[in-house]
Amino acid sequence: MPEVSIDLDMKRITNDAFVKIARECEPDLLEKTVRPEKIVTIELDQDKNPVITRERPINELSEIEMKKGDRVCLDFGHHQVGYVTLRLKSVGSPQDAPAFFKLKFGEIARELTENSEDYNGWISRGWIQEEFMHVDVLPATIVLPRRYAFRYLEITTIDTSMKWQLVVEEVTCKSVSAVDMDKVEPYATEDEMIKQLDAASLRTLQNCMQSVFEDGPKRDRRLWLGDLRLQALANYETFKNYDLVKRCLYLFAGLTRDDGKIGACLFIEPEYIVDDTFLFDYSLFFVASLYDYYIETKDMDTVKDLWPSALRQIELANEYFDEKMLVVIPEGFTCFIDWTEGLDKQASAQAVYLYCVKRGLELAKVLGDDENEAWLTGQITEKQDAAKKWLWDEKQELFVSGSQKQISYASQVWMILADIFNKEENKKLLNHIIDLDPEKGMVSPYMNHHFVEALILCDEKEKAMDYMKYYWGGMIREGADTFWELYNPKNPGESPYGSSIVNSYCHAWSCTPTYLLRKYFK
Amino acid sequence: MPEVSIDLDMKRITNDAFVKIARECEPDLLEKTVRPEKIVTIELDQDKNPVITRERPINELSEIEMKKGDRVCLDFGHHQVGYVTLRLKSVGSPQDAPAFFKLKFGEIARELTENSEDYNGWISRGWIQEEFMHVDVLPATIVLPRRYAFRYLEITTIDTSMKWQLVVEEVTCKSVSAVDMDKVEPYATEDEMIKQLDAASLRTLQNCMQSVFEDGPKRDRRLWLGDLRLQALANYETFKNYDLVKRCLYLFAGLTRDDGKIGACLFIEPEYIVDDTFLFDYSLFFVASLYDYYIETKDMDTVKDLWPSALRQIELANEYFDEKMLVVIPEGFTCFIDWTEGLDKQASAQAVYLYCVKRGLELAKVLGDDENEAWLTGQITEKQDAAKKWLWDEKQELFVSGSQKQISYASQVWMILADIFNKEENKKLLNHIIDLDPEKGMVSPYMNHHFVEALILCDEKEKAMDYMKYYWGGMIREGADTFWELYNPKNPGESPYGSSIVNSYCHAWSCTPTYLLRKYFK
Repeated sequence: MPEVSIDLDMKRITNDAFVKIARECEPDLLEKTVRPEKIVTIELDQDKNPVITRERPINELSEIEMKKGDRVCLDFGHHQVGYVTLRLKSVGSPQDAPAFFKLKFGEIARELTENSEDYNGWISRGWIQEEFMHVDVLPATIVLPRRYAFRYLEITTIDTSMKWQLVVEEVTCKSVSAVDMDKVEPYATEDEMIKQLDAASLRTLQNCMQSVFEDGPKRDRRLWLGDLRLQALANYETFKNYDLVKRCLYLFAGLTRDDGKIGACLFIEPEYIVDDTFLFDYSLFFVASLYDYYIETKDMDTVKDLWPSALRQIELANEYFDEKMLVVIPEGFTCFIDWTEGLDKQASAQAVYLYCVKRGLELAKVLGDDENEAWLTGQITEKQDAAKKWLWDEKQELFVSGSQKQISYASQVWMILADIFNKEENKKLLNHIIDLDPEKGMVSPYMNHHFVEALILCDEKEKAMDYMKYYWGGMIREGADTFWELYNPKNPGESPYGSSIVNSYCHAWSCTPTYLLRKYFK
Repeated sequence: MPEVSIDLDMKRITNDAFVKIARECEPDLLEKTVRPEKIVTIELDQDKNPVITRERPINELSEIEMKKGDRVCLDFGHHQVGYVTLRLKSVGSPQDAPAFFKLKFGEIARELTENSEDYNGWISRGWIQEEFMHVDVLPATIVLPRRYAFRYLEITTIDTSMKWQLVVEEVTCKSVSAVDMDKVEPYATEDEMIKQLDAASLRTLQNCMQSVFEDGPKRDRRLWLGDLRLQALANYETFKNYDLVKRCLYLFAGLTRDDGKIGACLFIEPEYIVDDTFLFDYSLFFVASLYDYYIETKDMDTVKDLWPSALRQIELANEYFDEKMLVVIPEGFTCFIDWTEGLDKQASAQAVYLYCVKRGLELAKVLGDDENEAWLTGQITEKQDAAKKWLWDEKQELFVSGSQKQISYASQVWMILADIFNKEENKKLLNHIIDLDPEKGMVSPYMNHHFVEALILCDEKEKAMDYMKYYWGGMIREGADTFWELYNPKNPGESPYGSSIVNSYCHAWSCTPTYLLRKYFK
């Protein structure tokens, strides 16, 4: 199910003043030199799960003389994002052939057990973090030019010669981030699992906070608006790096389509450029993200600058509604919500619109923009009434979506977050869908986050906590040090890309337990 | 048939004064920027021979938009040794994944049709000139750090993404050599084949003349004494770069085993170091190489410096003779002569000893070293008598070798070069072995060179010319632009390494037609 959007005819416009501000907010990355903690052997057990079958102290590394086919796997203890340097030498007779070896970087142990040759998914295999290296002259210090996201590094000697062996004397990683999790107090709790949920969230967020908020430092290494919104919320409760949020908001507002539409994602290299992917929900989340930023910082200058951009997203989204005032999502990859196969996104999108317009209304009030306050108020009434009239199924007591009247978690969760009903009604609705457990479930941690937040807003905090321990805790029990792009407790190897080898295992939208804990479980 | 020698207990000694002189003679490499001439498609015909099935002008390169799996092959017109720079960009949507591509360098077209995955030979697969590259940000100018030997460069896009394509805007090669063949007058002839033999020889020699005389710029990129001797001879007739020969002689004499034994080869990186391979014939060729250098340059200072090292090789070789005064070659890779499988090397080695001692004797005379002149004269008599007594088969009128009394080309050719019989006897012997055409033939161009020189010395110049056109001309007819490490006219794909993909197709010991033509066919 390739989900890509291509619009080669798209016209881009740049707001130079906005881009200048974004540039001024570019962080100086912090650097830490990290060394591997031990040598490990990773194998599959009889259930095909990766297990560490042997551990050796790291100081034995420089004693290992690697012949053709030998391999060694280093465990850096925690997930790193950074630049790796290898110090290599040869032993035996003089080096009479180039050293030829493979490096394989894995965010989790499972990646080391997967054969990249077998990969046949639709996403680029260029994302697999593997290098084939020739080194003509040893000893050598190899400073790898690319940045990797990894905890494990496996080095396989493809060939030396019959006359000499390769020795890896030392490996270091210059780990980089805009922030330092060691500067953030851990969430106060005696509960070991909650401690781990907080720590893995913090590490996930830290490792995604680079020149911009990246979605994942392994893949896509890119600023996505949907991810930014959740990262910013978690950042407000932890690192409080407001400039990085500001930078990203100005980037999105400064680099748009010629009609002012904000892209779903953008690139910062080789130069700032907005992608040709536009998602109904993601563009709207610019409004929510600006609102969240204002609530946290009270930075009126930024709100004044960016309000027209935010408002424009509502205007453009408004064009997608039909005469019944129901949103019509075009074919293709035009609205995200979740990766769930076959999910009908109409009801969720209608709710996201309401969720964002309500936040836009608050901003209009703050700014004293009376004209738009009135227009937005009308928007809310109109679209909320339509939702209740056409999407609410009185008999089933559930929101339905699309022509097939599909029932899903996503529709209920987003309608609850859109705050259409009162708390009691919302609570009843949420428990109803939980009891029903429809086939159209939740796949991404992103959707699961919204489910937990809905539980909390319905005063189901205990259920929320239990669910966090079940869902994100499931990743912890699988050995996660950072949270994943995708996790299905019933099928941990699942991937929307045709193979889990290109999955991202440190993914921003998965970092929210620290936000949920610190905001709602004080 | 792995032929390697390993002696980890070997003690090395360095003559610092000699190494200093070698360092002073290090050449400044000449650089030329070379661009590909056309885009070619190489395929196998029905006889499994590589053929160019399509040619496109090089200016179309930057118009090719490469998707996943696409490939393009560039023909640089001639064999190059140098450093490649690629200018790349992306077209389509923004680059949303790393560019992942393979570079495959081929000295000849056949290499592009061979799959390196299939390689299973005993020599290191690290020699296969292939790189797997990830480029995170396009456009990019990629300056490859390694030196390659190639005429063809194939670029295969392993993956881009569904959203963009890779464009190779420009490829350049900074070709390097200590010499420039454009400065050497071509051999004067109207014969097209002879012109090509001369030109391919010159290019082979030029491309092997780097910081030292390399055996092959693809593989082993190393100074071997046996190759040096022939390269120096060709160099005297063409480039006349005496300093590079002097440098190599001082390196061999300056870096020896603790008993003064000169190695078969040595490395110049990461520092000058002699290998732990010692070959009976190669060590002795130091004497012949010094003699040739003296004849060409009359450089007495060098001869005086290096005479003790030369003499030492004869003394050490002398230890290999038994009570019959026949050489006994130890098991293993201890004497080269040729790659011919199962070749008994005793007779050839006996002859090489005589060949070199006779040249040593001339040097002793030049130096007025009466004592050694007498000793060497005795050596010649003693070993020559033994050869005639024990190795000459009166009945068969051939030299035989070893306990099995093996008959080979090599034994006859080297005995002729050793000048044991008079010219008429030698001529008869050579024509006899040609008529017999024994199973133990000649495999390497190195051995074939000695055969041709033997023909010439027997006044069989017409046969020599015909043979050059047959043997080296065979490579030309196969499309060679430089001469190969190995060529069997009856089996062009032959390799001593288990697969031809690691063969060297620009190999110093094959460069001698220009020497033979210019010296003997004036």
